[in-house]
Amino acid sequence: MPSTIDLPTDLYHQVQGFYAYQMQLLDRGAAQEWAQTFTPDGVFAANAHPEPTRGRDAIAAAARKASDDLAARGIRRRHWLGMVQVTPTAEGARATSYALIIETPRGGQATVRMSTTCEDDLVRGEDGWQVRHRQVRRDDLD
Amino acid sequence: MPSTIDLPTDLYHQVQGFYAYQMQLLDRGAAQEWAQTFTPDGVFAANAHPEPTRGRDAIAAAARKASDDLAARGIRRRHWLGMVQVTPTAEGARATSYALIIETPRGGQATVRMSTTCEDDLVRGEDGWQVRHRQVRRDDLD
Amino acid sequence: MPSTIDLPTDLYHQVQGFYAYQMQLLDRGAAQEWAQTFTPDGVFAANAHPEPTRGRDAIAAAARKASDDLAARGIRRRHWLGMVQVTPTAEGARATSYALIIETPRGGQATVRMSTTCEDDLVRGEDGWQVRHRQVRRDDLD
Repeated sequence: MPSTIDLPTDLYHQVQGFYAYQMQLLDRGAAQEWAQTFTPDGVFAANAHPEPTRGRDAIAAAARKASDDLAARGIRRRHWLGMVQVTPTAEGARATSYALIIETPRGGQATVRMSTTCEDDLVRGEDGWQVRHRQVRRDDLD
Repeated sequence: MPSTIDLPTDLYHQVQGFYAYQMQLLDRGAAQEWAQTFTPDGVFAANAHPEPTRGRDAIAAAARKASDDLAARGIRRRHWLGMVQVTPTAEGARATSYALIIETPRGGQATVRMSTTCEDDLVRGEDGWQVRHRQVRRDDLD
Repeated sequence: MPSTIDLPTDLYHQVQGFYAYQMQLLDRGAAQEWAQTFTPDGVFAANAHPEPTRGRDAIAAAARKASDDLAARGIRRRHWLGMVQVTPTAEGARATSYALIIETPRGGQATVRMSTTCEDDLVRGEDGWQVRHRQVRRDDLD
């Protein structure tokens, strides 16, 4: 199986740049802008959640709630995506990556909170990249 | 010393994509496919091992053993490569990077298991990139 | 807000490659070469420091001091930059990223020592990329 030979020249760095943009939005609590990085009917599914979160309103509300909770506890959370595999699709790309969640309490010690994988169906529109479907799987769960 | 000026446009992301592909194979226990990402006479050397592992059969066997051991202990292992420096060579590239090993026990807490460096002699054939020689050095050893 | 659409094709991987080059210099104690990756009047500011470090001599001296201190304590330090956002500027690029500091004592266990953000004003000269201004913010401080 060829690994990366046919990958269009600039697709890889575009997906990396999109992830940096998207995760920095989430980590600074920009819930509305974060939701805009999903398609209007975007889905966020996780093996830790009983049901997927569907649509921008619900995605923004979930981010806002998590952000408020972290702020109340004085914790900075950082999402790191890495080891990104990108495969072109008709409308964008499929990306499979690892994600680490790093947390630092105010005045305290940084720790690796969680290790996960992330599978994204990405589409590229006029305003840049968006997630149509994301599946996150925590490594501590089966 | 110039840092990255003469680097061919797409080489860097190709090496990154290759590492993502290769490490995801290893971490899901695909020992045979992992071994195919080395050249037939590929060498895996590590400062923690008395002797290098030579050739695809030995590399596959070592990966299988490590994978079976982790499965028996209920541990998910993730290899993260990052901070990749790439220098073009006649047949491919030389790449010097950092590698983290993250482990998560089932139902437990993710931790940084190990920090290492990784020096690769990479060649590019018809089927994509392959490692001809890898040298891993654990940071906890001299 | 468009995320990454107008990014020049090779800018992203150049900044990534520069960071790998620069951080590997720092982590192996090459203080003089590290200082050369800043402009002659380069500034290193950090929310943990009362005053910014200004100019290559001061930047080299600070790196040398930190490196000697780590060596005396038998600790390997690795700087990981990731989640890099890059915006082109007239003379180079503005880059906003996350940085992790990983430390491993000789014979001991690797840990995440610190999580930070890093905002760089980068310029590109004949000898490659250089930092004109860097602002590091530790996540544990306000």
